[in-house]
Amino acid sequence: MDHLLAAVDLGSNSFRLSIGRVVINNGQAQIYAIDRLNESVRLAAGMGADKRISPDAIERAITILKRFNERLQGFHPNRVRAVATNTFRVACNLSEVLPKAEAALGFPIEVISGHEEARLIFSGISNELPPSEHRRLMIDIGGGSTEVIIGKGLKPQLLSSLYMGCVSFTDKFFDDGRITEERMNKAILAARRELEGIARQYKKTGWQEAYGSSGTAKGLIAILEENNYSAKGITLQGMEALKKRLIHDGKVDMDKLAGVKPHRAPVLAAGLAIMMAAFQELKIKNMLAGEGALRVGVLYDMLGRDSEQDQRLLTVQQLSKRYHVDARQAQRVERTTEVLFKQLGPHDPNDPDQIERLLEWAAELHEIGLSIAHTDYHKHTAYILEYADMPGFSKDEQTLLSFLTLGHQGRLSKLKRFEAPTSWWCAMLCLRLAVILMRRREDLDELPVRLVRKNNELMINAPKKWLERHPLTEYSLQTEQAEWEKMPLDVILNVHD
Amino acid sequence: MDHLLAAVDLGSNSFRLSIGRVVINNGQAQIYAIDRLNESVRLAAGMGADKRISPDAIERAITILKRFNERLQGFHPNRVRAVATNTFRVACNLSEVLPKAEAALGFPIEVISGHEEARLIFSGISNELPPSEHRRLMIDIGGGSTEVIIGKGLKPQLLSSLYMGCVSFTDKFFDDGRITEERMNKAILAARRELEGIARQYKKTGWQEAYGSSGTAKGLIAILEENNYSAKGITLQGMEALKKRLIHDGKVDMDKLAGVKPHRAPVLAAGLAIMMAAFQELKIKNMLAGEGALRVGVLYDMLGRDSEQDQRLLTVQQLSKRYHVDARQAQRVERTTEVLFKQLGPHDPNDPDQIERLLEWAAELHEIGLSIAHTDYHKHTAYILEYADMPGFSKDEQTLLSFLTLGHQGRLSKLKRFEAPTSWWCAMLCLRLAVILMRRREDLDELPVRLVRKNNELMINAPKKWLERHPLTEYSLQTEQAEWEKMPLDVILNVHD
Repeated sequence: MDHLLAAVDLGSNSFRLSIGRVVINNGQAQIYAIDRLNESVRLAAGMGADKRISPDAIERAITILKRFNERLQGFHPNRVRAVATNTFRVACNLSEVLPKAEAALGFPIEVISGHEEARLIFSGISNELPPSEHRRLMIDIGGGSTEVIIGKGLKPQLLSSLYMGCVSFTDKFFDDGRITEERMNKAILAARRELEGIARQYKKTGWQEAYGSSGTAKGLIAILEENNYSAKGITLQGMEALKKRLIHDGKVDMDKLAGVKPHRAPVLAAGLAIMMAAFQELKIKNMLAGEGALRVGVLYDMLGRDSEQDQRLLTVQQLSKRYHVDARQAQRVERTTEVLFKQLGPHDPNDPDQIERLLEWAAELHEIGLSIAHTDYHKHTAYILEYADMPGFSKDEQTLLSFLTLGHQGRLSKLKRFEAPTSWWCAMLCLRLAVILMRRREDLDELPVRLVRKNNELMINAPKKWLERHPLTEYSLQTEQAEWEKMPLDVILNVHD
Repeated sequence: MDHLLAAVDLGSNSFRLSIGRVVINNGQAQIYAIDRLNESVRLAAGMGADKRISPDAIERAITILKRFNERLQGFHPNRVRAVATNTFRVACNLSEVLPKAEAALGFPIEVISGHEEARLIFSGISNELPPSEHRRLMIDIGGGSTEVIIGKGLKPQLLSSLYMGCVSFTDKFFDDGRITEERMNKAILAARRELEGIARQYKKTGWQEAYGSSGTAKGLIAILEENNYSAKGITLQGMEALKKRLIHDGKVDMDKLAGVKPHRAPVLAAGLAIMMAAFQELKIKNMLAGEGALRVGVLYDMLGRDSEQDQRLLTVQQLSKRYHVDARQAQRVERTTEVLFKQLGPHDPNDPDQIERLLEWAAELHEIGLSIAHTDYHKHTAYILEYADMPGFSKDEQTLLSFLTLGHQGRLSKLKRFEAPTSWWCAMLCLRLAVILMRRREDLDELPVRLVRKNNELMINAPKKWLERHPLTEYSLQTEQAEWEKMPLDVILNVHD
């Protein structure tokens, strides 16, 4: 059955919308692009040391997102995924900007980490290239970050996201548009310095083909080829010639320089500097254009979530292994959590199963912090889930995992200031109860408690006889009720005959 | 060569001083106690929800420490180690209490983690017991925490520190000294709940001998034996009898109950409740008295530091392995850091080599945070080093490791509010320079920079010719100088011919 999927990429330089049609060929799902929008927004421009997205930039963003909203009318929320990258990652006024942006787009926006961005870019480019046994290097110079990836087939091997992009470098080195030799060299050095730390590992791993996927790479290819600075793709020699030319002209001269697109002109020198640094540090000989990138990666990722290949599942399994989780205990807690949460009935009608899946994963991972220390291990779990590279997960999803595990045991007062929807608190209660019931790390014959929700009141029903035989659990359940007294959920322990 | 060592144990219930003589027998060092002081302080008493050590308790502590100070006159600082446990770990007014306590004692006091406390207790008891192939269970019920350990010979296998002690339980369940059946049962349940989480693993590992090492255990043994509640040591049956008796009397009746020491009377019921819970949860049959405990463990630990068996070295190696550190890079950075730090000459005359060793360890471990994520990995390293169970390290030492690694790369502005001695900043500068110089992850033929200190000014001397061939390093060193401009160290890059 064919269906449409839409991906929105809120980059630091451009916003992009891609609509793809899913076609199943011989049991293999493929995505054919049927519509694309690409709008320059330069969101990171004018972002000073205070790291605030400027009012002008916000306005530009809203205007574009409203246009996207029109195109996305009628799409089911499950078929649209919008991801935001570096400028959103670092913006101090994100909490002001994000709701406005989501309202304009009409769909939730996920801020993703640089590592996740790199993974999706690799997936996007790889899915658009013909299958090959070659190892491929991919560089995506964005507005605020640069992703460098090596992988083979659909499997990434090295993923990096560096804090430099053509917009931020323009602000830093070419703020008035003037191009001098000194400025170019300074920008190249600064970029090489960012790459220095990863260069050795990448060169050691090696590759047979190199691709550049962003506007920067494609813009450079157009200029180099049209001016005969290179025969095909990007070469260091060709870029040296372009650098000389720009220094000679003292600016990007749109009238004289062939192949420059107007909206790329302001960031050309910075993009060139970063690309030259990459060629020098990684010893790249030639680079071709890669299609697809982030937005196509997002489309394929949605496809995976529909089938059995949810990347997040793999990530949870890997974390569980890396941190030597007691798998049987994790499973006990997970199953119990799931049963309890189901007893509460449907939660958020807009988001029917997302929180349920995330709760299960939180249960699976709730003990990973033990790898750091037993004392306050729930805090260590929450720390790891907040900051770890977790392929497939958005920042928001990691925040929820971190929230649930931070509160899965101990005093709740630590979360008093945390504003969360009721469904999150309900999920946390279920996880806490599961941990209490499974504390002996032994399987139970049957679950002795049953949750019932009445409006904002949650009743923990437990049979008197069972509790009498399990005074420890009784004590824990009483403590649990008291623990919620000052929290936004009314939890009542109801002991019945 | 014989010499004296002194250990001070600042517990929540008592302060203890032990002086031991080191004797070498057949190449094996042994410690013979030659002097002991034991003073009741009940530091945790009256510590309410605000977690402040009360003025009365502080005064009691100071008086005792001054007495200890007199006994320690003439001891070299390297031969005295004072460790503080749970009440110090949790006190909110630690920054007020600790300097006063250190001034009274005349020696620095290290606050150690519960895990470290458990390790030292095990070492102390094991060293005092005859060698055996049996696995041994040890329980030390302190004033504010209870340590439970299983180990064989001198090697601990399971180490736990639980948040309950005879002083804190007295405040919670027997605050007016009245003993009722309900209160006893509540206290036992609360203690069983703390033990519940570790019981299964301990029972599974198993043991052949059980020892109790604290005043609580020894006090119980004296009472049970003198009243014929048990023939030898502690048994559950004996404790049941004592419990009945205490409930019947309604209090600890010093006049009627044989074997009670006056200073143990106020905490007897709480200690009994915790011990009964341990017997019930762990299915202990019989427990004998273990000598030595924390203070003897501290003495043996000091001995190890003098020889080649520094526990901290082992811990660093284990962490490096557990977090898959690139050992060659760690070694490069460590060596370079060491050379640079030595160029600065002696630092703190009172503490000649401590910071140097810790700096080396920080260099060895500076990349462990990469196991969580590449982005901000220095923060993850610092987090792990702050919170991980690190046998042999005090909390202060972990703080220093965390400080050095947090600042080992990136902006220094994050540390602006941190007050640290000059030697710490110097150490950090050396680590930062080493990381810059080794960023390519390749061995250097020779170190191109030389550090010189003039008063508060630190000069990085670097030859012009070398820098010209290494523009990236030059750029990084310039950035480094700028980075220190607002920090408490004057760092100047001096390029010479």
